[in-house]
This record gives sequence, C-alpha cells and structure tokens, in this order.
Amino acid sequence: MERTQAAERSRIADPGLAPEGAQRIEWVARHSPVLNRLARARLGDGALSGKRIALVVHLEAKTAYLATLLAETGAEVVVAGSNPGSTQDSVAAALVGRGIEVHGVHDSEPDAFEADLMAVADSRPELIIDDGAELTTRLVRHRSDLVPGLRGVTEQTTTGVHRLRALAAAGRLSFPAIAANDALCKHLFDNRYGTGQSTLTAILRLTNRSAAGKEFCIVGYGWVGKGLARYAAGLGGRVTVVEVDPIPALEAHMDGHRVARLADALPDADVVITATGGVEAVGREHWALLRDDVLLANAGHHDREIDVETLDAVADRVEDVRPGVRRYSLAGGVRCYLLAEGRLVNIAGADGHPVEIMDLSFAVQALAVHHLASMRLEPGLHKLPAELDSEIARTKLAALSIRLDELTPSQRAFFEQWQA
Amino acid sequence: MERTQAAERSRIADPGLAPEGAQRIEWVARHSPVLNRLARARLGDGALSGKRIALVVHLEAKTAYLATLLAETGAEVVVAGSNPGSTQDSVAAALVGRGIEVHGVHDSEPDAFEADLMAVADSRPELIIDDGAELTTRLVRHRSDLVPGLRGVTEQTTTGVHRLRALAAAGRLSFPAIAANDALCKHLFDNRYGTGQSTLTAILRLTNRSAAGKEFCIVGYGWVGKGLARYAAGLGGRVTVVEVDPIPALEAHMDGHRVARLADALPDADVVITATGGVEAVGREHWALLRDDVLLANAGHHDREIDVETLDAVADRVEDVRPGVRRYSLAGGVRCYLLAEGRLVNIAGADGHPVEIMDLSFAVQALAVHHLASMRLEPGLHKLPAELDSEIARTKLAALSIRLDELTPSQRAFFEQWQA
Amino acid sequence: MERTQAAERSRIADPGLAPEGAQRIEWVARHSPVLNRLARARLGDGALSGKRIALVVHLEAKTAYLATLLAETGAEVVVAGSNPGSTQDSVAAALVGRGIEVHGVHDSEPDAFEADLMAVADSRPELIIDDGAELTTRLVRHRSDLVPGLRGVTEQTTTGVHRLRALAAAGRLSFPAIAANDALCKHLFDNRYGTGQSTLTAILRLTNRSAAGKEFCIVGYGWVGKGLARYAAGLGGRVTVVEVDPIPALEAHMDGHRVARLADALPDADVVITATGGVEAVGREHWALLRDDVLLANAGHHDREIDVETLDAVADRVEDVRPGVRRYSLAGGVRCYLLAEGRLVNIAGADGHPVEIMDLSFAVQALAVHHLASMRLEPGLHKLPAELDSEIARTKLAALSIRLDELTPSQRAFFEQWQA
Amino acid sequence: MERTQAAERSRIADPGLAPEGAQRIEWVARHSPVLNRLARARLGDGALSGKRIALVVHLEAKTAYLATLLAETGAEVVVAGSNPGSTQDSVAAALVGRGIEVHGVHDSEPDAFEADLMAVADSRPELIIDDGAELTTRLVRHRSDLVPGLRGVTEQTTTGVHRLRALAAAGRLSFPAIAANDALCKHLFDNRYGTGQSTLTAILRLTNRSAAGKEFCIVGYGWVGKGLARYAAGLGGRVTVVEVDPIPALEAHMDGHRVARLADALPDADVVITATGGVEAVGREHWALLRDDVLLANAGHHDREIDVETLDAVADRVEDVRPGVRRYSLAGGVRCYLLAEGRLVNIAGADGHPVEIMDLSFAVQALAVHHLASMRLEPGLHKLPAELDSEIARTKLAALSIRLDELTPSQRAFFEQWQA
Repeated sequence: MERTQAAERSRIADPGLAPEGAQRIEWVARHSPVLNRLARARLGDGALSGKRIALVVHLEAKTAYLATLLAETGAEVVVAGSNPGSTQDSVAAALVGRGIEVHGVHDSEPDAFEADLMAVADSRPELIIDDGAELTTRLVRHRSDLVPGLRGVTEQTTTGVHRLRALAAAGRLSFPAIAANDALCKHLFDNRYGTGQSTLTAILRLTNRSAAGKEFCIVGYGWVGKGLARYAAGLGGRVTVVEVDPIPALEAHMDGHRVARLADALPDADVVITATGGVEAVGREHWALLRDDVLLANAGHHDREIDVETLDAVADRVEDVRPGVRRYSLAGGVRCYLLAEGRLVNIAGADGHPVEIMDLSFAVQALAVHHLASMRLEPGLHKLPAELDSEIARTKLAALSIRLDELTPSQRAFFEQWQA
Repeated sequence: MERTQAAERSRIADPGLAPEGAQRIEWVARHSPVLNRLARARLGDGALSGKRIALVVHLEAKTAYLATLLAETGAEVVVAGSNPGSTQDSVAAALVGRGIEVHGVHDSEPDAFEADLMAVADSRPELIIDDGAELTTRLVRHRSDLVPGLRGVTEQTTTGVHRLRALAAAGRLSFPAIAANDALCKHLFDNRYGTGQSTLTAILRLTNRSAAGKEFCIVGYGWVGKGLARYAAGLGGRVTVVEVDPIPALEAHMDGHRVARLADALPDADVVITATGGVEAVGREHWALLRDDVLLANAGHHDREIDVETLDAVADRVEDVRPGVRRYSLAGGVRCYLLAEGRLVNIAGADGHPVEIMDLSFAVQALAVHHLASMRLEPGLHKLPAELDSEIARTKLAALSIRLDELTPSQRAFFEQWQA
Repeated sequence: MERTQAAERSRIADPGLAPEGAQRIEWVARHSPVLNRLARARLGDGALSGKRIALVVHLEAKTAYLATLLAETGAEVVVAGSNPGSTQDSVAAALVGRGIEVHGVHDSEPDAFEADLMAVADSRPELIIDDGAELTTRLVRHRSDLVPGLRGVTEQTTTGVHRLRALAAAGRLSFPAIAANDALCKHLFDNRYGTGQSTLTAILRLTNRSAAGKEFCIVGYGWVGKGLARYAAGLGGRVTVVEVDPIPALEAHMDGHRVARLADALPDADVVITATGGVEAVGREHWALLRDDVLLANAGHHDREIDVETLDAVADRVEDVRPGVRRYSLAGGVRCYLLAEGRLVNIAGADGHPVEIMDLSFAVQALAVHHLASMRLEPGLHKLPAELDSEIARTKLAALSIRLDELTPSQRAFFEQWQA
Repeated sequence: MERTQAAERSRIADPGLAPEGAQRIEWVARHSPVLNRLARARLGDGALSGKRIALVVHLEAKTAYLATLLAETGAEVVVAGSNPGSTQDSVAAALVGRGIEVHGVHDSEPDAFEADLMAVADSRPELIIDDGAELTTRLVRHRSDLVPGLRGVTEQTTTGVHRLRALAAAGRLSFPAIAANDALCKHLFDNRYGTGQSTLTAILRLTNRSAAGKEFCIVGYGWVGKGLARYAAGLGGRVTVVEVDPIPALEAHMDGHRVARLADALPDADVVITATGGVEAVGREHWALLRDDVLLANAGHHDREIDVETLDAVADRVEDVRPGVRRYSLAGGVRCYLLAEGRLVNIAGADGHPVEIMDLSFAVQALAVHHLASMRLEPGLHKLPAELDSEIARTKLAALSIRLDELTPSQRAFFEQWQA
C-alpha cells in the first residue's frame, strides 16, 4: 500500500511519532535472527503475495516487525492492537509510515477499541494472526458474512486457544485455525521465560521495590505461572502458588513453592500476580484479605483476572501515585497498589516480552500463517506441523552458534526396535 | 501363597537377611501415604483377587511394598528384579518371608538373570508390571504361547514405552498396555525429581566429592535429563547439556545451561551422566576426549548408555578403587572413574528414588494394573485415564494437608464459552 | 531555609518539575520504615539542629527523602548529586520546593558539575554525607581552608572508603570519617541485593533483551559482583567471573560460576558488567576481543571502569540507537552497545536501588551523621558502632513483623565459657 | 615411629581393617591437589621434623591423609578422633599400619573417649591440631603441667575458636593459637559448601526421603547455616531460618528464606537442622511443637545442640528403625526421627565433607601448624597470615587450571591514590 493511502485509512494517535517508533522497530529487526533467517526465507515464495492478513496482537515494536516482514512478501496487512493499554503510538505511527494500515491508539476507550477491530474486519481478511481470539470471535459473532472468506486463523495465546476450542465445541469453528500457542517454540519459551522475565521486571520498574524477601502469590501454575514463579524465586522472592488443578499444584510443591488456597495465601502476600487465563482470579471475596501495601498485577490475557470493578467499588479512595501505579485505600487502613490497571503488566506497563522471545513466537506465527496460505487445511483446530516447530528451534540454535549431535544409525535403529 | 511354598519356588540369596529387608519395607510403608490411602482403597474391590501378577521392577524396598499391597488383595504376585545390579538381597528375603515368590539375587550373572525372568514367565502372568518392558519383550520373543493369556501390561519407564511403541509398530502388541510412564504423576515427578535427587546424591556418596564448582555434562534433556541438570545446578555445579533434538536443546539453553556437542563438552567435563534412554551415548569415539579424573555415571534404563565394553578394551588398567567406583587408566595418563559399572547409578549404587516419589509412581502402577483387571481394554498402548492421574495428585496433596481452590461456576463457565 | 531563599541559592533545571518529584519522594517516604521509625526517632534529639550538612549522593528520590528528614531536624542541608548522569531534575525541583538548597542538573557538563560541588563546599559544611568521597577529596585538595571546620564525614561506597584509606595513608585524614559502606546493614544489602537487582533490571529495561541463555561476564567479585552474579544466574543467565584476588575467585568457582581471565571470557560474553571499583576494567586491549552484539554496562562507582575514551577512539561509527544505548561499530563488523555511557547503569539508566535497600543504607548514613554530630570522634576512619548497625536490622525486621528468638541464659553462658 | 611400636601404643578396633582404610586414604591422596602441591612443598623444610604433634580431628580418611603428610615430614604424630561417632575403624587401622599412633574406636563410650584424649595428652604434644578445642581445653583443665610445653595450637571450628576466645578472656590462653577456622580458605568453603552438601546428602542417604517440597528449618545462619540453607533450597526444599542476631536474620530474609522464631517454625518443619554452635538449640520446650514425621539432625560441633536427654525423657518409646535413624514416639501420636544420635550428621552418618573441601581446610591446618613451628608467636589468638591464605586459594585455582588477571600498574596506582 502506498504511504498516503495507509495514512488515510488508519486511525493512529500522531504520525509525528514515527521516527521514535522506527528506531524501536529497527532494534527488533537487528535482534530477530529467526525471523530474519528462517521466516524470511520461507515467506518469500509467493504464497502470501496479495493475501489480506489481519494482525491483531499487542501493538508494539516486535509486532510491528512481523507486520513489516509480512508486508514485504506482498501481503496486504492491516493491523490493530489486541489491548488498548499495550498499543505504543510511536510504533503505530512508524508502521503507517511504512505504508501499513493501522487502527490503534494507546489507552483508547472501549468503544474506540471496538471500532478499530471492526475497521480491521472491514478489510475482509483472508488470514488472521490473532491474540486472545479477539478478532476471530468478533467476526463469528458480528460479521458472520466474512467468515466464509476466512482461509485461516493462527492464535497466539492459551486463552485464545481455549476460545477456539469452545468455538469448535459449539460447532462454530468452520475454518481452519492453528493453535500457535501450542507450538513448542511458542509456549515453552514465550509463556515461561518471556512472561516470567518481563512481568517481574515490569513490576519492579513500576514500583522501584525490592524483589528479595518479598512473598509472591502466583495465581495459576500453567506455563505462564511456572515462569513467573521461577523468576520471582530467581530474584530472591518466596513463592506461594494457588491452583485448582492438583497436578500442577503438586509440581509447584515439588518445585519448592508453598501451595495454598488464595484466601490462605493473601494475608502474607506482598505481590499477587494472576495467570489463570480466566476471570476474577482475585475478586470481590478477596479484598478484605489483602495485606497492607500489597502490589496487584496481572500476567494473563484478560483485563478481568483482577476484578477491578469490585475493587473500585469497595475502595474508600483511589489515586494514581506513580505512572502505572494506582492506590486503593481500603477499609482498616489497608492500601493496595494496582499496576497497569490490571492489564497485562509486562506490556501495558513496560515493553513486553524480550525481543529474542518474540522472535521465536512470531516465527511460529509467520510459519503458521504461511502454512495456512500454502495448504488447504480442514476446518478445525490444528497444530503447527512438528517439523516446522523443530526447524524454528534449529534456526535459533544456529544463530547462537550452538551445534547438536545427531543420532548414529545404530542409536536410531535401537529406538525403533523393540527387541533391543 | 504360604511362606514355605514361596520359599521353595523362589531363588534368592539368603533368607536370613529377611529382618533387615523387613525393616526397610516397613520404613517405606510408613512413608507412602498415597499407596496407603488411595491405592489400598481401590485395590481391595476384588478385581485383583486371584489374578496372577508378575512384578519386574528394581527389587528394593519400595517395589517390595507394592508387591505386598498387591498380595494383600488376593493376587498371586511373582517378583523379579529388572536389573541384577539393583536387587537387594535382604528385601528379596523379606518378601519371601511374607509368602511372595521371588526370583532375584544381587549381581547375578546374565544367564542367571535371564533364568529368573523366565521363571517369572513360567508363573503364566495375566498382568505384568514391567520396567523397561524387560519381561514383556521376553514373553513376545520367547514365550509367545503365554501372550494370549496376558490381560495387560503396565510399563514404568520411558525406555519401556519406546519398546512397546516399537512393538505396536511391528504389529506385535496384541494385548493392552498402559504407558504408566506417561501418566503425569509418574514422569513429572519420578523422572525429574526422583532421578535428579537420587542420581546426584548417589554420585556424591560413592565418591565423597564436591558438586560445587564441578562441570557436569548431562547427555539427554528429556524429563530425566532436566531433573539431573536442575539438581546438578542446585548443588553448585555448572551444566553442559548434550542433545540431538533442537527443542529440548533450546530449553536447556534458556534454562541457563551450556549446550554443546558431546565431543566439545567432554574436554571440560568433571562428571558425565547419561540419560538418553538409548545406547552408546558415550562410547568408542569419546574415550580419547575424556579429561583426567572424570566421573562417568548412567541414569538411563540401559546398562549400555555408557559403552563399557569399548572402555574396557581401550584401558591400560582397570581397578576397583572404592565400592561402586572402578578406575580406568587410559592413554596419556588420563584416569576415569566408572560408577556402578554403568548401571543406573541411583539404584545400583544407592537406594534408588526417594520413598515419596515411588509412592506416586507405584500408585500409578497400582491403579493401572487395577484398571487392566477391571476393564477389558483393547489391544494397544493406552494412557492411564486422566481422572485417575488427577486423583493420585489429589491424594498426595491431601496427605500433605495442602488445600486447593476450586473454580467458581462463573469461572468454569468462562472457560467453556467462546464469546466471553 | 525559606523556600524563596533556597530557590535563589540553588542551581536546578526546572522548578516546574517539582510536583512529579514530590510524588516520587512521597512514594519513598511511604516505603522507608527504617528511616521512619529508627532514624527519625534518633535524629530529633537536637544534635543535628543548626548543623550545616552537605549531602552529595546520587540525586534521586531516596536521597531526597534523606535530605528532607535531615532538614526536619533543623539542620541546614545543602545537596548536590554525585554524578551528573544520575541527577533527576524533578526530584531536585521538589527539594527546592521544600526549602532545601540544591546544586544539580541532569547531564551537566563536567565544568558545571564541578561548580555545583564547589557551591556546596561554599556552604562550609560541618558534616558531609559523601558518595565516592567526591566532595571530601575536593575539599582536601581545593578548599583546605574548610577542612578544619569539618566535624566529620560519612561515606557511602567501597570506592569512597578506599579513597579515605588512601587519604589516611597519605596523612591527610585530619578529621573523623565513618566508613558507612562497611556497616553490615549497608554493604551486605545495598551492594549485593540492591546493585544486583537494579543493575540487571536496568540492563533488561534499556535493551528489551532476554537474560535467559545469555553469557554474563562479571568483572569483580566483591559484594557488588557477588550480587550481580546471583541475579544474572537467577534470571537464567550463565556467569563468568573475572577476578584478580584468588579467594573471591575460588568462591565464584564454588558458587557455580566459570572463572576466567577477561581476555578468555570476552569472546563468549553477551553482557559485560564491571564492578571492580577501579579504572579501565575493560579497556584498550579488550576491544578487539568483543563478540558481536555484546552489551557493556558498569555497576561500579566510576564512569571510568569501562574505558569509553579508547572505545570511542577505535570505533568506526558511534550512534545512539535507543535511550541509554549507544552503538559502537568496530573493526570486523562487530557492534557493541554501551549502556548509560558507562555510568552506573542502575542509576543513570533507571531509578537506582530499590526503596527498601536505600532505607537501610540511608538509615546507616543518618545514624552515622548523627553519631558524628553527637560524639567527638578522633580523626581517622571509623566504623559505625555495631550496636547501631544491629539496631537498624532489628528495626527492619520489626517493620516486617519478623520475630527473633533470644539466647537463653544457659546458651549465653555456654558461649562465654571455655570449659563447656 | 615403627609400625610395631605404633601398634603397641595405639587403641584401635581392629588392625585387620587396614586395607579398607588404606584404600580410602588413597582416594583422598589422589584428590587433594592443594595438600599435594603447596602444603607438601612447605612442610618439608625441617621445621616440623621431630616435633610432637597431636591431631584430634574427626578420624576419617581426610584426617588420616593429613596425619600421613605430617608424619612424612619427620614429625611424631599422635592421633585421636574428636567425636567417637565419627571415628572410622578402618581408617584408624590403616594409620597404625603406617606407623602412626592412634587412639580411637568407633562409638566408644564417654569414658573410653576421654581416656583416648588423655593418652594423646600423654604424648606431651608441642603442637596441637584441634577440633572444637577438645584437646586444648582438656590440657588446660586437667594437665596444666603440659601447657608450658605447648608451642602452639591450631583450631578447626567456629566452636573451638569461641572456646579459645573464652579462654583468652579468662586469662588462660598462655600459648599461641591460630584460629584456622577464621582463615578465608577454611570457613568460606568448609563451613558453607562442605557442611552444606555433606549434611543434606547425609540426611537424604540415611532416610531415602525426598528433599523437594520439604520444609527445612535451619537453626542458625552463620556460615554453616548459610550453606545448609543454600543446599536445602538447591535440592527443592523451602527454608525457614531461626536466628538470634538481627543482621544474619535479615540476610536470610533477603536470601529468600522465611525467618521465624523456632516455636513458630516447628509446627511446619519437615526437617530441622541445628547449626548454632551452642547448646540446646532444640530442647525441652520444643518437643511438644514437633510435627509428625519430622527429621532432626545436627550440623554443629556439639552433640548437645539437639537436647537428646530431654527428648529421651519425654518419649513414650524409642526405637532404631534404620541405621542412623532413631524413632521417638511422643505424646499425641507424633513420631520424630533423630539422625545419627544428634551428632554431626554428615560425619557420624556419612563420610564427612567432600575431599576437595578438606583439601583446603587441611591445607590451612598444615600451613598453620608449620607457621607455629617456624615462628615464635606471642601467646594469644592469631589469624593465619593473609598471604598464606591467598596462596592456598591460588594453589587450588592452579590445580583447576583457572587463570586470573592481574592488576595493571595503573589500576594498582589508582587504588592507592585518594586524588584519583
């Protein structure tokens, strides 16, 4: 698309911020060896050329670099953020400067955010790279006319895969979707190390507090929760894990964490981080149990894991005391601090995952969308083919100059024989 | 079975060792809450009564306690060890003292070991609890007459599941088999924490050496290798991981370990531990690369991960310098120390997994064998039903007095709705 | 001092920034239990009333809170930053708004910085709270007329204590000085956990890079280096330590780190952090050994640990690519990234130590300056009395609601008897 | 001494065990590079020739190797164990076989143990290498006639140094003593890594229990306690620290451990380890607070840290249930397990510190005793000269092929100048 045309169609905050955004994207470009090697090589075969791709992921520099790579293949890419709190206006401006249509403004009101997503829908996407299935579910619900035109969706998050599975269970998944989150090169790295590092450092950055000696309460011990717990402990914190599933709960116990019910954990918690992928992980019945000075942060997809509405309702006073830090004065003199308004704290309160992590995750997305464009998959939920997953890891290792051994023929034969 | 009858049919080293063995089994009994609660409750419904069960697992106290529990249900249990190096004669004696038929003597020669397994086969087992598929593959190969009588097999190890899969691929898996190893309550705990702790402590116990400051080379980064690496690092060692699969290799890198080819890792390695589940993980081409004073230990199922035969062949001199420690003097003045003759070092050189770990693993086995006895499963490889797996974890948590939250109805509904 | 008078005498960037600075100071005030309890109680006895105190420490919110507390005792406090890179203009403005004289502007040129320090000297301080002995050494060198008026100095850093010791060795320490750095409640916490957390998170924040899998080269394994290594490993990095002293080198080895000469470490290093307290820890002879894409950061007092001058000289090209990130293009296509211009990266590139840490360190400083004002100490270098040190820790524990046991009389007697 | 003469004068259990002991000593000899390089070189200058040296340290293979090295210098060495529980009869036999006089039998009754120490006294030692000041205090108390003949004492433990200090305070330290424990190459390594690894692995070995998920209560957070906590956490345990001193208590908190009073910690503790260096760290008032199934172990010098006498008194029943494990049945159905009778569990229940650790500690002792023999030190407590301490570390690093940088002249000059 031409730059002027992109600018006309887009809704962004301020085109003048483009240079700063461009600098950020350039940094990502320099540190994305997997995208630069593998994805780039594969994307350029023409399969994506002329395809209309909607990209609805947190709109910051890493996402923008993916958009740029896709646009370079000849695809028509339209971009929106998946959460108004995480949209970086300078990055949006830089994308428009590169001729890509963007709909997203930092901290948009809900109505404007909805309008942005529907504007993306209006581009009649054939392929969607989605986060939390935010665009996909809206299409199914509000624009069923566009569903037949969907060649495929690829989904970034645990939450989004849940939703696609629910959609399938309801008989509404009439198009192919790839659970990119379930690719090993995505969830093993992004959900654990990516969220772990970026969430913990975001909390420390917003508050200038010490992690050492703090009691962290991690709600949910899936891949994200495991990562949070590891980094909290690595930074000198003690960890209590809250779970509903006995198997991860037992893992948490054996990993050296305390395991408790939330109501038992809260009175000691200095920092509470939600990572359930659900809603109201901390809510109405918990506010009276908070310890004075506790920090509340969310690492899950939804803004609804911390039930801010009821917190607002019970607070005597609500003040913004630092950027990204809102203080709630509760009964009994207890004050709690909500970070980034309960949005994903690593991305609404900082710069999101490390570059290297998104390089892997977006390599998954890039190969997934290319796979959807190249093959005619059946409707339903698919995995990224294992050989693509492996190739991503292999490319990353090569970029790190790490060499692997190979099975010898006799070792390989051994694994294939039952008599051995 | 009566005690006298059991004694007549058994082959053990010395019945007089029974009191010591009984004391060991009693210790296990006291610290196996999951078996004592869950398994015991379920096993007693008559499904196992009168069934002929072959139990071929490392013959030490935890295994003996499982045998005892099964015998108490009215099953006819016949026991052999899965590796002559791991058989504890006192425990074998105690089992016979409890009226259970046993075939196993510590450090038996290969022929005698084979004869023991075939003696177990002669009991015409309906159900097998196997380790490395040692008995199952022998039945298929040598006693196909007994295969039709097999109601089912449940298998303990990654290696054994590999073999059952190879058997299925060859069209020879004509009976149902449960991959007990693949149950979450088995491999998440036994393979990681169990092998990790017990292998590292066995190495330190056999050698009286310091872990701190040592360079550990872990060959294989499956569940076992992950556990080994974690405990080696936890004890102050540095870890280099050798892998053939790029995805676990990348995990090892992100977990903070060095990743290298074996040939690049050996010159710096102070301790080499194999955990590939295959053969010749360290072998002929590697002996010239060893550093002086290196320790070699195996944590995988096979005695063949360290290719002892070629090590014997190249050594100028071989001496036993401590119990469980054999010194090989190699060209160039290099001496390496092979622990426990290359057998599973944690079990041939110490007391195997911690009690608590085997409580989980054998709860899996107990429920698996009970499931096989209660249901008529199709031939082929099966998983332990997820609800049994969960119940094991739930029982363990209850024994620990750890309480879990439950999803609220609205949280549960959220996970089931795509529109949420 | 009156606000107008303070404003007239001060040199700051912009008084209009005061509200933002005040908000920052307020956050510190809320999270400084030790200063709020112990120091406040002790400082108010009149000993400081009317005393002229020079406070020359990194000029950000925690320092400002200390200045405020001192001013509340009736002392005349004059403040300058100890490094132009770390001065926060909003905080300086807020201090002036509270009637305190301040000399400091962010990123001042060397001449202006010198002038600021000399303006503080002109206030004829009786007591100095110093950092790196920056003001003290200037007084000795340039304003020896003021030295007789000095009642005492208390010094914050390892580097400053080194200098005071050199001053004593040269027979120039004609006034009492307290090595606040050597108080246990200072260096055990500030140098290790404070610098460790804040340096690592600053590096990640400036670069949006992943710590996991990175090779960190830590130059110096004193208290600061130990903290850096611990946090680097805790975040998933591998650590190589460079030392000149064999005992900390051996500790590093036993702590699980690689120990090597810098020249051997650099070719593998992804991140280099200097913490020697000296100069040219990385310099002229090392630039050719850097790996492409390496990050260079400094955690020591001096801007001269990384020898930026020679780096500038050998680079083909120097560009600022992100805030706080300067890229040097070197021969052979290698690019390295210098963070925060080689200044203390945690404070010039982020918000300095966590609040809780400075609460301890500034409690040491507050009690030290009070001790100097209350007692007539001999000229020379002194330690903070052990009972004050203990009381700080005790106050912190009380604020955390942590209770300690006490020795029983018989236990105490045991420790005092040699016959026991 | 001749072998026959040594045998006649000695009291050991069984000379026939010498081959096994010799094998153990040989293993130590092979893995003691510091003693083999540095100490051996320095010891041979004649200073020790003909000197009567009493060596009263835990009598196992590492101690025996030190005795052997000293005897090789021409000294007359007489050996006793410092605790009857830690004496290994095979090692004692091997020493006698080498012509060294030994007084020690495993598990001697108190009277026999006393007689052994007094037999050593009868050799009229000029130099004592002591552990816990066991021989030194007995000489002062019971054989003051021998005190004037004492050229010096060198002491191994924190406890012994305490006692020497008390002796000095009482005006009874009329001879020079070196606080070997206070040498950096001793307490930084032996007390932390040595006790840490060996205590934890001994507990696991005696009980076959899992460390992961256990709650460890560490009583005392000196160097030993710090090591215990580190290894307990490294093995997957959670740690609660009990302290009386606020500064180490605060360190424990910042290191990520829970800090509590013993009475608050016990109800949750799965394993209690004492490391206070004092007496009755766990005693009469605590037995009612124990959790069922708790393990009790001691890592401090005295058998009196766990007050076994009162535990015996309150127990309904006491049984030995495994080697080294005694069960106490208490009121309310609680059973606790005392390991190694409350003696140092790593040495009475296993093989003591790792070889590499004792190589450092005994290098300190060897250089200390040589220093005493070479110099005429003043009466009183001395430190090992820092240059000897450094040289030990330097030798160890050289043995590990680790190379260090050296300060450049300009760096060295910088550290010496205050103007820099």
